[in-house]
Parts: sequence; structure tokens; C-alpha cells
Amino acid sequence: MEALLQQSRTMCPFLKRTSPTTLRTLSTATRPSPGGGTMSNLQVLGRRCPVMSKALAVQSARLSGTKRFTSRAAGVAGCQSLRVPTGKRALHTTGGHPASLASGGYEKNEQGNPNLANPLRSSPTAAGVGTAVRGPRPEAPTNEKFNYGNFYNVELEKKHKDKSYRYFNNINRLAKEFPRAHTASAEERVTVWCSNDYLGMGRNPQVLDSMHKTLDTYGAGAGGTRNISGHNQHAVALEDTLAKLHGKEAALVFSSCFVANDATLATLGSKMPDCVILSDSLNHASMIQGIRHSGAKKMVFKHNDLEDLEAKLASLPLNTPKIIAFESVYSMCGSIAPIEKICDLSDKYGAITFLDEVHAVGMYGPHGAGVAEHLDYDVYASQDTASPQNTKGTVQDRIDIITGTLGKAYGCVGGYIAGSAAMVDTIRSLAPGFIFTTSLPPATMAGADTAIQYQSQQPRDRILQQLHTRAVKTALSDLDIPVIPNPSHIVPLLVGDAELAKQASDKLLEEHGIYVQAINYPTVPRGEERLRITPTPGHVKPLREHLVQAVQAVWNDLGLKRTSDWKNLGGFVGVGVEGAEAANRPIWEDTQLGLQAGETLEGAVAREFNDAAAQAVMPPLKAATPLTEKAYSGMNSTPVGVVA
Amino acid sequence: MEALLQQSRTMCPFLKRTSPTTLRTLSTATRPSPGGGTMSNLQVLGRRCPVMSKALAVQSARLSGTKRFTSRAAGVAGCQSLRVPTGKRALHTTGGHPASLASGGYEKNEQGNPNLANPLRSSPTAAGVGTAVRGPRPEAPTNEKFNYGNFYNVELEKKHKDKSYRYFNNINRLAKEFPRAHTASAEERVTVWCSNDYLGMGRNPQVLDSMHKTLDTYGAGAGGTRNISGHNQHAVALEDTLAKLHGKEAALVFSSCFVANDATLATLGSKMPDCVILSDSLNHASMIQGIRHSGAKKMVFKHNDLEDLEAKLASLPLNTPKIIAFESVYSMCGSIAPIEKICDLSDKYGAITFLDEVHAVGMYGPHGAGVAEHLDYDVYASQDTASPQNTKGTVQDRIDIITGTLGKAYGCVGGYIAGSAAMVDTIRSLAPGFIFTTSLPPATMAGADTAIQYQSQQPRDRILQQLHTRAVKTALSDLDIPVIPNPSHIVPLLVGDAELAKQASDKLLEEHGIYVQAINYPTVPRGEERLRITPTPGHVKPLREHLVQAVQAVWNDLGLKRTSDWKNLGGFVGVGVEGAEAANRPIWEDTQLGLQAGETLEGAVAREFNDAAAQAVMPPLKAATPLTEKAYSGMNSTPVGVVA
Repeated sequence: MEALLQQSRTMCPFLKRTSPTTLRTLSTATRPSPGGGTMSNLQVLGRRCPVMSKALAVQSARLSGTKRFTSRAAGVAGCQSLRVPTGKRALHTTGGHPASLASGGYEKNEQGNPNLANPLRSSPTAAGVGTAVRGPRPEAPTNEKFNYGNFYNVELEKKHKDKSYRYFNNINRLAKEFPRAHTASAEERVTVWCSNDYLGMGRNPQVLDSMHKTLDTYGAGAGGTRNISGHNQHAVALEDTLAKLHGKEAALVFSSCFVANDATLATLGSKMPDCVILSDSLNHASMIQGIRHSGAKKMVFKHNDLEDLEAKLASLPLNTPKIIAFESVYSMCGSIAPIEKICDLSDKYGAITFLDEVHAVGMYGPHGAGVAEHLDYDVYASQDTASPQNTKGTVQDRIDIITGTLGKAYGCVGGYIAGSAAMVDTIRSLAPGFIFTTSLPPATMAGADTAIQYQSQQPRDRILQQLHTRAVKTALSDLDIPVIPNPSHIVPLLVGDAELAKQASDKLLEEHGIYVQAINYPTVPRGEERLRITPTPGHVKPLREHLVQAVQAVWNDLGLKRTSDWKNLGGFVGVGVEGAEAANRPIWEDTQLGLQAGETLEGAVAREFNDAAAQAVMPPLKAATPLTEKAYSGMNSTPVGVVA
Repeated sequence: MEALLQQSRTMCPFLKRTSPTTLRTLSTATRPSPGGGTMSNLQVLGRRCPVMSKALAVQSARLSGTKRFTSRAAGVAGCQSLRVPTGKRALHTTGGHPASLASGGYEKNEQGNPNLANPLRSSPTAAGVGTAVRGPRPEAPTNEKFNYGNFYNVELEKKHKDKSYRYFNNINRLAKEFPRAHTASAEERVTVWCSNDYLGMGRNPQVLDSMHKTLDTYGAGAGGTRNISGHNQHAVALEDTLAKLHGKEAALVFSSCFVANDATLATLGSKMPDCVILSDSLNHASMIQGIRHSGAKKMVFKHNDLEDLEAKLASLPLNTPKIIAFESVYSMCGSIAPIEKICDLSDKYGAITFLDEVHAVGMYGPHGAGVAEHLDYDVYASQDTASPQNTKGTVQDRIDIITGTLGKAYGCVGGYIAGSAAMVDTIRSLAPGFIFTTSLPPATMAGADTAIQYQSQQPRDRILQQLHTRAVKTALSDLDIPVIPNPSHIVPLLVGDAELAKQASDKLLEEHGIYVQAINYPTVPRGEERLRITPTPGHVKPLREHLVQAVQAVWNDLGLKRTSDWKNLGGFVGVGVEGAEAANRPIWEDTQLGLQAGETLEGAVAREFNDAAAQAVMPPLKAATPLTEKAYSGMNSTPVGVVA
């Protein structure tokens, strides 16, 4: 295959200048073919080529002339029980339509089968069976094997058709130039504006130092499950830190918070008799999956809607076990749950609360424990670490199960749950997703532990992050750019179209060196496509100005809707909605941020920015130089000293 | 809570000398109480104490005198729909039995509820309701909230009762003293004999070097999902390496192979119309979970039984999509699947094959691609890397989906699938467990990539591992120790009792400084409990001799059954079974291991051991010194040079 490609490249100018990655994308990306099946984009291009077009025509003619159905049923054991395909199945196999030419070089049914005389036999979905019959065929022959290759292509085609097919951007975030990255080319720099390394802890010198040391002493991997040789002092220490952070009796670490949410909800929902899980309509996929896997009854309540939640709770018997599963910060719109009121409802109706703080840990509260901690800011700020006796009755204390991640604001990877010792021990003892998997590497656990402790000891990173967020939101809103209003650190810009969102993202990257991924279905509902911007403490003034200019230019170039346009259409997802500004009031209050009376936002940023501790987190701003590539490089390549 | 503990410690000699961890374990570990409920082990001890026993008696009397059922139903919205509990629920709540005193300090229903006049109210499962009624009570009052704390305690009690409750051993594997580790005490050394870091790659200098460099340049974490800022050159390179390793078009990396198996089977099984998944009866929990989550029809075939598999395949229509899910090396018994014959059946009945090579990658085959590669040893050995045109028709080529791990023989963490481009792209596009989770850290991916390439270039580590395995199996078998026969690198010793297996493991650790975890239910079926030994290239002669002596001593001390005992009982899981030696023939043949005619095993080990490349993997053996702690330390603390 590679030899063939090599040979073709010497002859074909197109192949010569096209990268293997692009070729692969072109060959897997399919579109409807004129004949009714599908074809890859590479084939579309091939048809325009004077050499390839002829070859393709020959191949096509040969395929349609092949005898499609061999009668081998009698020779195969078990064929007595052949069934008529259901309507569902027919939908997947596009019965009677011409076969896809885009088999991607791999079709199970094309592999050599010694029992078959005709190696070119094709599936029942192939063309050429007398007159093509369109639509489901309940009487279709059932003596052929399932066409797996076709199944994959049909699934992929659906993704292309509805524009939900994802193209990954090769982005290599540079620790020493945070928040910049290089692309597939090591020389090309872009500024990353959509990472969940919200605080830049992935490049924090203390975290890296802790990881280096642990790597040297304890090696690369844990070497086993927690039960078989993968339990160690790093797991013990990290879980102890996490329990303390949230003021809980115990915590348990998983491969990821996806696994933590999935495993915990699936275990509780399946083990508690007749359990009902009440789930916020915007819950993350991990919770949705956990609930589905639990087999428990699921009731979806309207996003952050207490009335709807209460109505659903009230419809259930008091003694039925109920889990209210929700998030503190919803990552794609930045909304924040009414956590305290949900606790009230939970108490009233005998439920337990399951709060996903994934996008909040490290970011909210005096110790970075999340929004639940933040809601009792002064109580927690008055003590060094959370401890049950002093925080009894706080919102965080009232939450039964908190889940969080080590992979976003804490800069590493992994997830966890925290709660009562008995609950944690139950999950530890019953959840297959915890029991039967290799532990996180010692260095990862040590790095995460360091990150949590670092953030619990000083709130400067999250304050600076909040100040930068406010500055970006204000600047964009002033330009009539449609920022979806919210009280958190997320800056979602409404586009409202999958194709346009991708174009806007591509333009930002290619023309402005700014990386903001387009967020399309299924991450957000169709029609609500957006760009999601996440400022960090490292997004200093020139970078913010650059972003704002670039977004403005892209909005102009593509003629994207402004806030006023959405307003004229009656408003959408909070944009251009009368009175939606109330939703915009930041949960980090001015006094918590240390904003002084009459101080401008940029003034506060500058003040924070000149602070010694903040300096350690990012390199000093050289000067208010004009925004040039050179200025960026100079500014960001300053080595970062170790914080004492 | 902590202040109270502090105070109690100054007064109580028991509390003073007992660690917080032990206290926690004692307080969560529950056992049936004489009254019919449960109590913690701490309470059992407390009853023996002259001070605490009185306090407990007072508390007990007060609790049983408390009015149990308040009539609040009318005041709570929605109580009109109260239901009679089902029998299933009654089973979980041990209706009418005295309540557990072992609430572990956390009981949801004991939290302050402003609506309740009596904060000491208890659940309907509590004692004291007139005359205690034993057994399910269909007419039990339903106006009380579900008792979550009790639910957790009941679940945990079940684990204690059936001896499947797991106690984790704190084992810190030392990179520079491989295969040794320290315990919770940094000074105390043990030899690890049950890690899945089969080749010691977790301490390989090239792997660590690659990780250090990547950490410094690209930071601790990926900072996002693959779609949103978490895709990078490390992911691209690693997936390219994995695809090449297995001679497949594409590969996809997941957080773990648990997630890879779960996500892939769940996605394919749920998306392919009317899919049936045929699953080996000894399949790993991750596959069982993936199949369950798919909702597809599942047919379990007898372990490695081709006749049973064929009968099940033949019972299905030819055109029904079928996935045969199985493993190459079954990790708890070491058996190896008849992979080629399963491919034949797959072809014959129009199925696809899903092969988990988790315990085989790095360990089998000339490039370490696994057992599938090993079966065509000479074909693969004749070329530098696997490539489709030269390996067409080999067993590995015929497998549709290969899954593997980066966390065992490759020494890091993470999992993957490899297969056709269209299949991989389909999973990439559809599996929530891949889409919605943070990518593995760049350093992890770089380290794993280095490990795979290192192992694909030289088979010495796996050859040495095989030689050590043969030596251990032979030495133990010679002593009538019941090694479960198998052709792989796993050395399972049959104990056949959960309690005894744990005792044997504890004795090895405490009396001999040897860590071999007991493997109990649910990892193996009840009655098949075992010790599972995994030799590595680092388990040099004195370590092996020490192990054999220690196992012999423990078998004597506990009076555990020998092979001859099992034989007298008619044999069990291959032990003491007439003709089972055939199952013992290693898949790594003598010639593949380079064993010379007439050469003794120890001779071959010594020869391999003196080889320069092997030297790099472990420190040189100093001398045939008597087995003392000092000799170990000297032998293992030699710094390891970087392999050129």
C-alpha cells in the first residue's frame, strides 16, 4: 500500500503535494454519489483527473457487472434459522442502492474466504441486482453476510451529512510559552484560547518538579490495578488531599472523571432498589452514560429549573431512593446551578445530591474546591483547610457526592469522587470501572496532588483568570459580538450554524493564529453551535486585544449574527434576550476579586499582574508594544522560576 | 471530629497505637450484630473495652427507645403516590431487623432537616417498632426517606461476609531497584511478584527520558478532549506506531483499555442492527461491561471451546452482524485462545473478531505485537515492521479489531484499539467514552510510544521474561506446588479458598518480604482463588530462589493443598488433571527463545543474562551470595545506564 503510494507520488503532482493525513481524511470523508450510494471526497477529486477518471469508470463498470447473489445458504450450517431483516436493519444497509465505492480499502467481506468460489461477491446492499429497488425491502435475500465495511461507511456518512464529523486540530501546547502552542509544524505558533488547562497548572513549575521526581523514583506507570500492585502512597495521599479539599470523609480516584461519573452513577443506580435518577437536561455525556448504564429510571428536569425538579421529585414516593445529578458550572454555556436550593429540595424529598464540579474545581472558592465551596466563601476563607467541624451545614457539606477532575484546572489527568466513607467504600468495592483498570501513574497522582495543594493555598490564579474573563466578555460585548450571558469563566460566542462555526474556527486559526475550537452537535444541540473561549491567567493584555480584533474580523468576514441581530430575532439561548444581563452577574464578586472601588478592570488586572505571585505563574509583560509576532515570542519565552 | 480523636488518643492506649487508616477500616468493616443487624469491627472491639462498652450500652438503649415512625406523609408534596415496597427492596433494607449501629459517622437521614422535629428519627429498617417482624414486610410503612447510609453498609457487609472485600496493599515500586518496592514505610523493602509491568518498562531509561523531555516541553496534561485542544503530535505519533505495530490501517487511544473495550463493544453492539456478541466465558470485566452497555444480544461460549462457539454461531442467521469477543492471554489462568481457528469460524459465519491482547502486547511476537503476531513468528520476524502487503493472510491480519494496553508490558497507562480506518473512524466519531474525555497527557503518550518502539526493536526482555517464567514454573512444580498449567507467562498457584489465599498473600508479604496479591472473587470464580505470580526480566536467580522457598514455607505453614492433593480429589482447573501437561507447552518455543540443544534452563538464563542488552534492562548479578537483605539491596540499587 505504501509502496504503491510512493510510486504514485512520483507520477502524480496532486499526490506529491498532499500529505498522508489529508489523503486519509479525503478517503474516509464520504458524500452521496450521483448513483445513490456514497463516494469519498478523494473519488470526487479522482473523477476530475484525466488519468484516474478512466480507471474509476472501468472499475465501476466491472463492479456493476458482477453477479451479486450466490446461493450458498444450503452449504452453511445454521442457515435454517435465517430471518427476514427488520425495517431497522434495512435502514442501515440502504438495501438496493448502489454500493459505496468508498470502502476505504478494508471490507471484511472482501477478505479471502476459502469457502467462496467468487472472491468478488458483494453484499446485498450492492447495485446491479436486476432492477434496483429503492427503500426497505422486507423480502431481501438473507443468505449473505453482514457488510461491516458498509456499516462503518454509512455511520460516517451520517456524520458528514449533518456536519457533526470532527476534524481534530494538531495543537501542541508549549509549557514554556503558555498559552501558546505549535501546530503540526514545530515552528508555527498559535495562541490557544479554548484549553481547559484553565489556570496553566499544566506548566506550573511545582507540578512539573513533583512529576519529574516521582518519575525518577517510582517509574512511568503504576503497574497494576489498585488491588493488584497498583495501590501506593501517591494514591493514598491524593485521595486524602481530595477528601480534605471538599471537607468529606473520603475520596476515590479514577482514570478520568468520565469514568468516575459513569461508574458511580451506574453502580448506585443499579444497586439501590428502584432508584430514580433526576438529571439536569444539560448534563455531561458521562453522567448521561452512567445513568443509562445503571438501568435506573431517569427523569430529566429542565436546565437549572427548580420548579420542574421539585415537581418531578414530588411525583415520587418519599422512600424511593433518588439521586439528583447535576453540574456546578455547565461547560458549554457557563451557567451555574442553584446548588443550595437543590440541596433544600434533596432534603425535602429524601434524595441525595450528585454534583459534578469538573469545570469548577481549582477555579472557585477560597481553596479552589469549586462553586459549592464558593457559595460559603467567607466561612471557608476563614480557615486553612476545609474540615467537617467548622463547615457543618455549608452548601459543600450538604452535597452527598462531589465529582471532579484532575485534568482541567489542575492541569494533569484523572477524575475522582468525594463523599462519605461508606459511599466511597461502596463504589470502591463494586464499580468495575474502578476495580478492573490500571491505576493512574504515580507521577500523575503526585503532580495532581501538588496542583491541588498549590491552588488551595493561593487564589491568585483564579482571580486573574476571572479578571481576564471579565475583560474579554466586556470587550466582545462592546463590539456587539454575541456572548452567551453567564456568571462563570466560560466565554461562549453564539454562531448558530455548524458549518459557519467551523469556518469561523478555521479562519481564526489560519488567518489569525488563534485556536478556538468550534463546538457543534452532539456537544451542544443543533442550532446552538458556538465558539467557546476560555481565558487563563496567561492571556495577558496584548493577547486579549489580538483575540478581540480577530473575532471582530471573522464576524465581519463571515457576516455572522451580532447580538443585535439575535435580539431582532427575539433572542436565543440568552443572547439578545431582554433582562438576560442578570444571568451575567459573575459569581466571583468584586470584593472577592479584591477590586477596589472605582478601579477599572484593566487597572485591577495590571495590579494583580504585577504581583509577585502572579509573576511566577506567567512571564512579566515586557511593555505595551504593538502586537507583533516578535512581541509575543519575547513575552512568552521568558523562563518561569520556581515558586518558593 | 479530628479534635475529638486527638483528645481520645491521649486517654486511650488502643487509639494511641492504632493508625487512622486502621481505624477507618475497622469502622467501615461491618459484621452481623447479635441483634440481627450489623456492627463495625470497631464496635466489636469497643464492647470489650470497660469504658466504651458502657457508653455503647447507653446509646443502644436510647436508640431503641426512640419513636421510629413519625407521621409526616401528609405534609410532604407528592406523598399521595407512595408505593408499597417490592420484595426486592425489602431484601435490601432488612425490614424489621434492628438497625445497624455502624453508620460510619455519615447517614444522609441523620443530617439536619429543618422540617423534622426529631433529628434522631431512623429508617423503617430500624428496630423497636413494637414486635420485630422478620423477613420481607409487604405492608411496611412507606412514609420515610430511603436510608442511604444503611444501603452502603449493607452492600459493604455483603463483601465482608463473602470474603470479597478488598484490602489494598500500599506498594511503592522503586524504579531504581526494580522489581523491589517499599511499603507504607519508605525504608521497608519487598519484592514485587505480581505487577503487570511485565518487562520493567516503567523504569526503562529511554521511556523515562522521553517522558521527562515531553513534560518539560509540553507540560503535565493535554488540557482538553481530543476534539477541543487535546489533539497533538503525540497522539498522532502514538496511534501511527500502534497501527504499524499491528499491521492495521488505524488505531485510536483511550484513557485505558477498560474504556477502549467498553466503548468499542458498546458502540458497535448498539449501532449495528440486531448485533449479537459472542463472548468467551472468561472474558475480562471491561468486555462484559461493554457488551452489557451495548444492549446487544450476548451469547457466552465456553472458554476457548471452538465447538461451543461454532454451535452458537451456526444458530444465528448468516446476515446477522456478529462480534466474537475474546482474549489472547487470559490473565488469571494464563490460557491462550485458539485465535486462528476462531478466525476461521468468523469467516465461515460472517462475524468479525474482537481480540483483547492486553496481557500479550509487548510480550509475544517478534515485535511484541501480541499472540496473534507470535502465531506467524517467522513471517513477522523477517521484516522490520509489520506492513499489510507482506503479512496478508496472517492471523494478526485476519483479526478485525485488536485492543491493547499501554499500562502493562509497556509500563505506562492507557489503552487502544487497532483495525480498519473506517472502523476506527466510526468509534472515534461515535463513542462517548472517547469523545467526551480529556486526552492522555503528552508525556504519557510519548513514553508509551518509546516503549512500543523499544520493544518492537528487540525481543530480549520478553525472552528473558519467558525464561524466568519457565524457571519459576519448573521449580514450583517440582515441589508439588499447584501451578495451574498454561502456555503463557502467568504463574497461577491454586489455593481454592478466599480466606486462605489472603492469608497466604499476607504471610508472603509479612514473613518473607514477597508481594503476591491474592486473587479472589469477582476476579476469579469462587472456589478458584489463587496467587498469581508474574516473573519479569528483573527477577534474577536469587529472587526466584527466595520466592520458591517462601512459597514452600507458606504452603507448609497453612497446610495448603499440593498438586497431588488436587489429583487425589480428581483434579481442578487443570491442576492434578491427567494429561493437562499438554496445556503447559509454552507458546514461546525453544528455538524462538534461542535455547540451544541440551542447554539447561538456568544455563540459557545465565547466557541471556550476560548479554549486553539484557544488562541494560537490569543490574548485573553480583555473585551467588547467600540470600540476605544486604545482597538484595546491593544487587538492585545499581544505577541503570541509558541504552544507546
